[in-house]
Amino acid sequence: MKSLLIVCDGMGDRLTDGKTPLEVAYTPNMDKLASVGINGIMDSIRAGIRPGSDTAHISLFGYDPYKVYTGRGPFAAAGVGLELKKGDLALRCNFATLDENGIIIDRRAGRDEYGLDELASSLDGLEIENFDIIFKRSGGHRAALVIRRSELLGPYELSSRIIEPDPHIAGVGIAKAEALDASPQSRYTADILNEFVKRAIEILREHRINKERIEAGKLPANAILPRGVGTKPEIESFEHKYGIRGASVSGMALIKGICRTIGLDVIEVENATGHVDSNIGGKADAAIKALEEYDFVFLHIKGTDEASHDGNFDGKKNMIERVDREVMGKILGEVDLGGVNVVLTSDHATPISIKQHTADPNPIVIAGDVRTDLVTKFNERDCARGDLGRIRGRDLMNILMDLSDKAKLFGA
Amino acid sequence: MKSLLIVCDGMGDRLTDGKTPLEVAYTPNMDKLASVGINGIMDSIRAGIRPGSDTAHISLFGYDPYKVYTGRGPFAAAGVGLELKKGDLALRCNFATLDENGIIIDRRAGRDEYGLDELASSLDGLEIENFDIIFKRSGGHRAALVIRRSELLGPYELSSRIIEPDPHIAGVGIAKAEALDASPQSRYTADILNEFVKRAIEILREHRINKERIEAGKLPANAILPRGVGTKPEIESFEHKYGIRGASVSGMALIKGICRTIGLDVIEVENATGHVDSNIGGKADAAIKALEEYDFVFLHIKGTDEASHDGNFDGKKNMIERVDREVMGKILGEVDLGGVNVVLTSDHATPISIKQHTADPNPIVIAGDVRTDLVTKFNERDCARGDLGRIRGRDLMNILMDLSDKAKLFGA
Repeated sequence: MKSLLIVCDGMGDRLTDGKTPLEVAYTPNMDKLASVGINGIMDSIRAGIRPGSDTAHISLFGYDPYKVYTGRGPFAAAGVGLELKKGDLALRCNFATLDENGIIIDRRAGRDEYGLDELASSLDGLEIENFDIIFKRSGGHRAALVIRRSELLGPYELSSRIIEPDPHIAGVGIAKAEALDASPQSRYTADILNEFVKRAIEILREHRINKERIEAGKLPANAILPRGVGTKPEIESFEHKYGIRGASVSGMALIKGICRTIGLDVIEVENATGHVDSNIGGKADAAIKALEEYDFVFLHIKGTDEASHDGNFDGKKNMIERVDREVMGKILGEVDLGGVNVVLTSDHATPISIKQHTADPNPIVIAGDVRTDLVTKFNERDCARGDLGRIRGRDLMNILMDLSDKAKLFGA
Repeated sequence: MKSLLIVCDGMGDRLTDGKTPLEVAYTPNMDKLASVGINGIMDSIRAGIRPGSDTAHISLFGYDPYKVYTGRGPFAAAGVGLELKKGDLALRCNFATLDENGIIIDRRAGRDEYGLDELASSLDGLEIENFDIIFKRSGGHRAALVIRRSELLGPYELSSRIIEPDPHIAGVGIAKAEALDASPQSRYTADILNEFVKRAIEILREHRINKERIEAGKLPANAILPRGVGTKPEIESFEHKYGIRGASVSGMALIKGICRTIGLDVIEVENATGHVDSNIGGKADAAIKALEEYDFVFLHIKGTDEASHDGNFDGKKNMIERVDREVMGKILGEVDLGGVNVVLTSDHATPISIKQHTADPNPIVIAGDVRTDLVTKFNERDCARGDLGRIRGRDLMNILMDLSDKAKLFGA
């Protein structure tokens, strides 16, 4: 059998006026899946640990984030198609606005994307002390930065043991990168990063685009704030780990980056934005189509998390209902549960009341070649009463490989 | 939000005539908590592992007892206010009675406390081969022993790899401490301990107090039985680990010792004895008051375990009913579940039929910002049907920090 894993980012929740958004939403298709499947709850990493979207997905794909996660930067880089080499350092960056005194007045340059591609190009290809700067724009005000030793000089490992330049708040100056240990690598890395931040300000300040932005009354994108520093993760490929080929459908650069890093093919879908208005029907079509070619297909939907971070109960409920109608309806209609084990879950909760990720366990249903149970509604509390019990995210892929009869025997 | 963790020592049980003491006891307040909370069962350490009260609590506070637990002695020492230094060795001791042939005739000197403080003083401050003896009475017939290298001579680490003098049974002589490995530290430690046991007998035998005890028809406290040998545990402070300050209310020296060792403030309550007649209402008051100042308060009640070790079903049932009335009633009346997550559980089972600790999982309820479930009675079997599922003790603090919105994100 094949496997289809659908993750609705941040879909799990706590109670608002005694109910969760999943409990209030009208979700006949999700409930159908619960009725014909086995249900449970899942701690993405372990009980009580609040996962990032990155560490949660690493865990859901069966890897131990405590061992392979070095920081978000490498996945941001992979998300825009940059392939890291051993020794590379990767960071995610914001275009930001500084005032004349070097104080950050907007960490996202007014969220105005005008000319950002061109500004990014002006920083790409710089050389700093025998290191190459690779700089590529991602979505919105974001970009990925890779620092790589010049090939002529041979390998030199940069270090992630540094304080990052991004102070994470406005109203202050850019932080000075500093080594967190006494290694020459860490000191060297901090020096290069400081020099990059300085050179970027010099180049962006004088750039034609920023003059146009100012003339048009927009905030200039006159500085870069790097954060999420990490080195190339040492991670076994998905294909090697499970012996099958997989594909992914996601609108979010970070998730694409994780998928590329483990070797899942990334299928691009038009207007898959990662927002609540994303073309999720198109993503469902793409995932269903990919099942013809691949043994494992991963479908990621971000809009549920977006509404949650905004604390918008009705927005989340509506997004869940869109997923039910435009994704789950299609999947129930077109995917044969005799040939595909279908999983629906979330990567973490993002409760409306908290507006950020929490560790509340995720509802999960697996339909296909499973021992069905008595649960008939897909939500946090009904799933908790299902026969799957409380499982860990890191075990999910093994469970799926087992159900699909693609698991290897341990022992004899 | 804040957190209040109430642990009734040894409260969990197995079936006696088809019911557990919790199932038979009248506990309207515990049941109320179950009704408004989320319920489950918890393995303090891991399924099937019988926890001591020390290792169970270490685990409940989120530490791995397999890594930090070196023996009970250090916590007994901390429980009477002794602060260990690196290299120190700590043991817990009984005052015992030897006959004229050196045979132990009572491991607890008849449980008669007459003059024990004075006897303890006579051993405190001895010097044995450049090591200082610190000896302090604890509750009842118990005392704590610390062996410390003389400061003038600089550090020397003693070893816990020895056979202890306490044979744990009467009718035999005191065992000879022996090294369990070939290190000089272990051999040295055994020698010092043997010399201490010998010197203690010499001093106690001739002591005025023991003459008075014999004249009054009491058993003399003429020997010391050291056991629970351990070195200073290397343990991260609670405040550093969770980023909050915590306080504890307990009548039991060992538990106070664990709390002091991890840096929880220890609040003393008058007549909090750790027995079934303890002033548990006063302890509840102290815990409720401490919630004003601290983000985390731990309330420990020992009487449930005491009745269990005696195999006294009705005594245990009565103690549970006292806890329900005098502790849980107060807490439900005075603690706002909108601002405090309240947990009620036990650290291990002590079944009436077994009379010692077992690994049966503990019933647990968490009330506050939780997804409530359908459980309406607080006991082993009803809780097992709750939505919390089966969790591990070591995850409890992380779960509480997450529910209280005080957890850090792992990843981004």
